Amino acid sequence: MFSPPSTAFQGPCAACRFLRRRCNESCILAPYFPPNEPLKFINAHKVFGASNIVKALQELPQPKRVDAVSSMVYEANARIRDPVYGCAGTISQLHKQVNDLKAELAMAQAELFIMQCQQQQQNANASFFLDRYLVSDYC
Amino acid sequence: MFSPPSTAFQGPCAACRFLRRRCNESCILAPYFPPNEPLKFINAHKVFGASNIVKALQELPQPKRVDAVSSMVYEANARIRDPVYGCAGTISQLHKQVNDLKAELAMAQAELFIMQCQQQQQNANASFFLDRYLVSDYC
Repeated sequence: MFSPPSTAFQGPCAACRFLRRRCNESCILAPYFPPNEPLKFINAHKVFGASNIVKALQELPQPKRVDAVSSMVYEANARIRDPVYGCAGTISQLHKQVNDLKAELAMAQAELFIMQCQQQQQNANASFFLDRYLVSDYC
Repeated sequence: MFSPPSTAFQGPCAACRFLRRRCNESCILAPYFPPNEPLKFINAHKVFGASNIVKALQELPQPKRVDAVSSMVYEANARIRDPVYGCAGTISQLHKQVNDLKAELAMAQAELFIMQCQQQQQNANASFFLDRYLVSDYC
């Protein structure tokens, strides 16, 4: 889902800089919160708290952590934009859009079915006329 | 979106019980975390932390708080079910569903347009036969 983070040590990470603590190569947050993107950590920290982010990462295998951080940052940004509904608001709107599209699709499919029936009827009528008039021209 | 919480004091709320602290009628969490639903608070606390929930509620007007807690509990449950993608995973799946439905609807609408054109052509052909053969029967 997301590209892997840089593993090279680039100085204190955004998390350690914000929390005013020492950062080193073993910092669990450093690969996901580079110093040049301070807002990523500030928003995630405001919504989840640094210790909850660390705990969440510790409970996951290394290759899953980059996606976990990206999804937490996404959710934090949504909560900051909409402090009442956050991501749940987006999900509710998307569910409504899915239901509206399903209803529109069902209507289009019903209209198609009716037109197919009408076309079959028209084809039957056309065959009747062709048999009755065109064939009689040659008899 | 959600029903308002009970305002009657029902004893220590689920949050104060879990955090082993005194609960009284001025507890900001009590209206939203009743003692009979302990899991609501446990999950929200695991993901957001009690202090972040309190801060989020303090920044909102009273009538918005019930929806804010419900959406935070919903997000926390999603994160516990899917620790890597949480709500963002649901949003990604819903976006895919919306795109698939839009594509299916566009195909159905294109098919409908083609059938409408075919039907107009068939009606024109039928009129031609009616004019050419039926009318000549009466001449």
